[in-house]
Order: sequence, then structure tokens, then C-alpha cells
Amino acid sequence: MKQSELFFKTRKEVPADADSINASYLVRAGFVHKHMAGAYALLPLGLRVIKKIENIVREEMNVIGGQEILMNVLQPRELWEETDRWESAVDIFYKLKDSRGKELNLAPTHEEEIVDIVRDMMKSYKDLPFAIYQIQTKFRNEPRVKSGLLRGREFLMKDMYSFAESNEQHQIFYKKAIPAYFSVFKRLGLEAKLTEASGGIFSKYSHEFQVLTEVGEDTIFYCDSPTDECDFAQNKEIAEVKEGDKCPKCGGTIKMSRGIEIGNIFSLKDKFSKPMKATFLDKGGKEQAFIMGCYGIGITRAMATVVEIYYDVTKNKMIWPAEIAPYKVHLISLNQNAEAEKLYDELRKNNIEVLYDDRDLSAGEKFAEADLIGCPTRLIISKKSLEKNGVELSENNVVKIIPINNVLKELRKNNEGR
Amino acid sequence: MKQSELFFKTRKEVPADADSINASYLVRAGFVHKHMAGAYALLPLGLRVIKKIENIVREEMNVIGGQEILMNVLQPRELWEETDRWESAVDIFYKLKDSRGKELNLAPTHEEEIVDIVRDMMKSYKDLPFAIYQIQTKFRNEPRVKSGLLRGREFLMKDMYSFAESNEQHQIFYKKAIPAYFSVFKRLGLEAKLTEASGGIFSKYSHEFQVLTEVGEDTIFYCDSPTDECDFAQNKEIAEVKEGDKCPKCGGTIKMSRGIEIGNIFSLKDKFSKPMKATFLDKGGKEQAFIMGCYGIGITRAMATVVEIYYDVTKNKMIWPAEIAPYKVHLISLNQNAEAEKLYDELRKNNIEVLYDDRDLSAGEKFAEADLIGCPTRLIISKKSLEKNGVELSENNVVKIIPINNVLKELRKNNEGR
Repeated sequence: MKQSELFFKTRKEVPADADSINASYLVRAGFVHKHMAGAYALLPLGLRVIKKIENIVREEMNVIGGQEILMNVLQPRELWEETDRWESAVDIFYKLKDSRGKELNLAPTHEEEIVDIVRDMMKSYKDLPFAIYQIQTKFRNEPRVKSGLLRGREFLMKDMYSFAESNEQHQIFYKKAIPAYFSVFKRLGLEAKLTEASGGIFSKYSHEFQVLTEVGEDTIFYCDSPTDECDFAQNKEIAEVKEGDKCPKCGGTIKMSRGIEIGNIFSLKDKFSKPMKATFLDKGGKEQAFIMGCYGIGITRAMATVVEIYYDVTKNKMIWPAEIAPYKVHLISLNQNAEAEKLYDELRKNNIEVLYDDRDLSAGEKFAEADLIGCPTRLIISKKSLEKNGVELSENNVVKIIPINNVLKELRKNNEGR
Repeated sequence: MKQSELFFKTRKEVPADADSINASYLVRAGFVHKHMAGAYALLPLGLRVIKKIENIVREEMNVIGGQEILMNVLQPRELWEETDRWESAVDIFYKLKDSRGKELNLAPTHEEEIVDIVRDMMKSYKDLPFAIYQIQTKFRNEPRVKSGLLRGREFLMKDMYSFAESNEQHQIFYKKAIPAYFSVFKRLGLEAKLTEASGGIFSKYSHEFQVLTEVGEDTIFYCDSPTDECDFAQNKEIAEVKEGDKCPKCGGTIKMSRGIEIGNIFSLKDKFSKPMKATFLDKGGKEQAFIMGCYGIGITRAMATVVEIYYDVTKNKMIWPAEIAPYKVHLISLNQNAEAEKLYDELRKNNIEVLYDDRDLSAGEKFAEADLIGCPTRLIISKKSLEKNGVELSENNVVKIIPINNVLKELRKNNEGR
């Protein structure tokens, strides 16, 4: 994409109403537009990041047999009365009435709808097990929002629901979900800790995936073993340890940290299937309620978390992990558009995602914007570089001049290393 | 995908509450699940069709320079008061209040939000022209719904907005949008008529893309010229002709038909930019309001329209155009899973989308379901076909036995012909 044509503008000043690092950077870099408190529009650069995150999540959910569907935002009151959640979860619901006076809410989660679908379709143990997921816009009527895109009123989630004939069958899938989640987060460039947690409104059987960082909303106790081999971590909500304690698993030292919860997995047992009479016939011909699990990943939140972890305040820049960067390569022409355009065409022909700054601006302005945007690889074509018949390539803080003809080879080499 | 693992069930009976051909077929074939009147969940097969439609729309909008973003469902009252639409369009709004008493609606369209974004970002004629689109879930508080997925309360739309410095510059894009729309509809297998129409709440400058069929909600007068060269068509709303008249363009005969509006394009002039004070500095340094257009395609509606046009009631089947079929090939094993599985693996290795019926059901049950699902190419491996060392291939009502080793070649040949 030529930057002269890209629908985007950066801002020099920090937005007055930015409530977080992630919102400040994403707004200033032209990735998102603040619509109202807790709701952001995704502009072309931001949407590219989000789609890459979505596709990583899709790929990893498909690997463990997840099948994608798309459920509804509008939810009829009757469905949520079946599980007694119409009144109880009222504080996070957006409730409304349609023109006929029918009461609705905007779905903050989809256990009710998926169970309604499954009870209409699946009747036999032969249909089990299966797991269904969607990537969908969710709504939470948060009284206050203060963390930018980390906690919004309108945001994208991947939510998956598993159905099994028994707790044993359920556990098999639950245990497959854990490495699939780690694969997702690794590809997003995020190191997550599997953390024992309370199930909130669900049950006591749950795990959260926490990214440790000062700006997290949760308090996490984890083992800081010198060998890094112990995976003990507990949310404060249920913690049996405190800072400085010995780790009950390995004898290492317990540390306290803040965490951003970027994913969670719950065993639901028959909590939803039983009241909704979602049953199947087991091998013996007996009616049984489905044993369920649910598995969430915040898509918008994942993007915001990456910003929080990877921004560089001293250089005023974002740094995107290669797999979710809006463009892998940022090609910057310093008044050398004839040569730059040739390279741009060559990169595109070879399916390399490239943002090409072809604009008539000063080097300083171009570099400042490129810093903000944060593509992992930068190519600069200048009079100076061309004198050496070359291009300046910067990547991972290494800068070198390489011959123009070697750019493709170099990019491919670096890509393989990842 | 192995059909034994696919999250899907067909139904033999027509759903009692089906209000249309499209809903009846899509529900019975397991493509969608009815959630409530006017809202359907997309199950795996239905979501595959929708994603293919979305990608065709994306490709064609990108060709004419459209850039994709994603705006918000929640809309604050203040924004819609700027254009005086909070009260006037009240009949199709879902309105609600959040926990702080703030008034919101669920977006049925996005002129207000896109103008708000653009006025924050774009200040100069140098930024113009551009066109921005999104594919997003829309909401309309319809008092009655009676056409299945043709007219829902919650549905997917592609909406694009163009911004120009003058009416002349606007017209250039408007005229590019028309062939782009025809390309979309052609790839969807739909023959559309460009129809003059009133702009509804917008202005008198608009065109609709109408698919002529008995079940359409609109009345269309069009020229039935014997040479098929005249493109005269008008919506009844503004028609200057009636059935049997001479076509004012070519002298042919005017016919009346029902139409399904699957797309529309509007010239908006400064209708939204002026009240919202969305201005840029023109070449002379003078402040001007942006000249806008908007361009819609109903994504969910397009799927429903294809069903209405292509279903075959005598054979109780759907027939998907190849480019949007949930799977291109339906491979059916009649108790020959060892041979079928080999072919299945070969097709997948060669990136051919194949649904493989590996289930332990009778030939009759398998064929009835395959008819309902409606993949364009069917391969049957049976004892009979294997006796000839072959596979039965049916496509476009032609059935033949071909050697197993030729299947790939045959599929590729047929694909090129499209």
C-alpha cells in the first residue's frame, strides 16, 4: 500500500482523553478512532492487525477441531431466563425493547444461544464430542472504562464452547485447549502464564492466561523459580500463597505481579445444559445433560496487550511482532521514488506485505511516523544509500546497507529465522 | 471436512415457522439456526458461504480503491442529533440507555460515524478522493419480518462511503462503483438490473441493483427489448412508465416484475458533511464540505437471494454457484471408505475444497442430504463405480464415470471453464 493513498493520519499530541498507553499509541498512530468511551473504530492499519490476530486464533482453534459459526448480538429475555441470568448478570447487560415491546439484551457471552442451537440439533452420544467457536463483537455495559482497548464496552472476542458426553471426555478437550492457547499467544508475541482462578459467575474450575505487566487489572501470585521450570500461578481471588512464600510446588519464591487476562478456559459441567434441558441419549439409551466447557480469547484486548508490552516510550514507537504487524516491511523513500517504486513493485510481486512511504515529506517526519506505526522491518532508500547502490535495512535494532538486488533474499532469510 | 465430524444436521420437515423459501432451505440444510424472528445464527456451512461472499465483495471494493475499516454498533444520541436523524429515523432504531443513562442506538447505517472519523482526520483537498468500507453487523428494528434472511433485524452489510472535493470528483467514483457492483453480483451468480430509484431518506440521486424474481419486495418496471441491449429500469416509487408502455429509451416494451434489492448506491452531496461541519480546505484555501456517496450490499441478503433464485423445488435441493458454494466438491462414499478416503486426501492436498460423506448411512439418505446442501460437483464412489475403476462425477446435470486417477484433472478442467 502506498502511504500517500492510505486512509490514515498520525497525531503528534497525546489525545487529551486517552486513558491508557494502548489507546494513546493506537489513536496517535492512526490505527483506531475513538468513537466514545469504551468503543473504538478500527481504521485500516488497526483492522489489519486485528484480522491477523483473528486468523491466528482461527488456525489454532481449527487444529484442535474447533468449528467456526457466527451467533447473534440480540438475545431474547426468555432464553436468558432459562438459566436465571436475565436478572443476575444485569449489571453488565445492555437491555432494550424492540418495537413490539419484546425485551432483549446485547450478548456479552453466548452460552445460552449455543446451548439452544445444540439442543435443537444434537441428540446422541454419537454426535459427541465437538467444539464450536465464533469471533464476534461483544457488549458489556461497563459503568467505567479506563484501560483503552483492554476493556471496552464493544469489543471482539473469540468464544468457544465444547460439548462432551462425560467429564472424562470433556477433560480430554480441555487439556488440548491449553497448548492451543499457548500457541496463539506465542504467535502474538505474548508470554502468558496459565493461572488458576475462580470461575466467576461459572464455577470453581477455571484457568486464566495472564500476561504479567504493571498495567494489568488482576493480581497474580506466581513462582519465580530460578530454573523457570515451575508453572505455579494463582489469581489473588483464590490464592493460597502470598508474596515471599515458598512455592508449594517447587520450593521457589512466590512473587506478586499485575496481570492482563488475555484468555480463559472454564469447565461448565451441566450448569447451562441442565436448566436448558439440553440432553442426548447415552450409549445405554439414557438421557444425559451435555458436559460443557467454554474458552475465551479477547481479540481487541490481545492487540492492546501487545501495545502495552512492546511500546518503547523513549523512542515514541510501537513495535509489532512480525506475525501481526500491519505490514511486515515499511519502505521509505527519501526523494528517491523512481528506485523505491521499483523495489515496491518487486516486493509486492513476491507477496511481501509492504507499506511504501511515497509522500513528499521530510525524512524526520517520515521516520517519526514509521516509528509510531512500528513495522518490524524498515527499508530506506536515500541518495546516500543509492551511492552505495544499496538500501538501508533496519530490523531488531540492527541497521545495515544491503544491495538492492539482495533485498528479497535478505527478507526471506530473516523471515525463516523467526 | 469429513461429514461425520461436521457440526450440522439436516431436517426432513419444513420448519413450522419458516416464512420464506430461503429460510426453509437454509434451516433444513443445516446452514443456519433460527434464533428469533429476524435473527439467524450462521452454522459452519452457512458461515462458509457468507465468508466467500464477503471476500468477493472485499476484492471488488479493493479494486476500485476502497479501504476496509470496522466501525461500531453502539451509537451515541449526540452524534445522530447532529444530522437530525435521532428522532426522524426512530422507527428502525433499536434505542437503549447504558448504566450511566447515556442514550444509544444500534447502528442501522454509518454515515454519522464515518463523517465523525473523517472530520477528525482529513483537512485538505490533497487527502481526496477516498472511499472507505466495512463489512459489519447491522440492526433494524423491523416491526414485522416475513422474508427469512432477506430482511432481518440483525444482518451483515457491506457499506462503503466515498469522499470527494467536488461533484465532478464524486461522479468519477460513483461511475466506477457500478461495474464493481456488477462484478460482485456476477461472481455471486446473480443477474442484477441497475434501477433508478428514489433515495429514500437521502436524496433523489440513487440506483438500486435489483434481482428480478417473484419473491422480491419491490416493484420494478424494465425494458424487455428483444435484443437485450436496453438497460432501462425504474423502481415503481419513481417510475415514469407502466406495464405495456413503450420504453422511452429504445421503443421496446416495458414489463413489470418484482425485485430483490441486493445493492444500492447513493449520491449524498453534503447532506451529512454540512450539518456535521466536516470540511476541508480546497485549492484556494477555502473551507468546503465533503461531497459524499454511500454504497451498500446486503451480505446475508445476497446469500438468501441466491437460494431464492437457484433452489429446485422439484428435486428438493439447493444449487450453489461454484464461487460461493460451501464446498466445491461433495465426495460421497457408498460403503467404499478405503478408496474414498484416498481420494479425499488427494483432493485436500491439492487445495480442492471437499466435503466428504464418510458416514454409515444409506445411499438414499446421503443423496437427499447432498441435494439439500447443494455443492456444485458431486463425486460418488460405489461398488458399481469401482468395478469400472472409476468415480461417478455429476456436475451441471451431467453424470459420467471417470477413472479415479483423472478426477483432479477433470475438476481442474471444469473449473477453468467457469
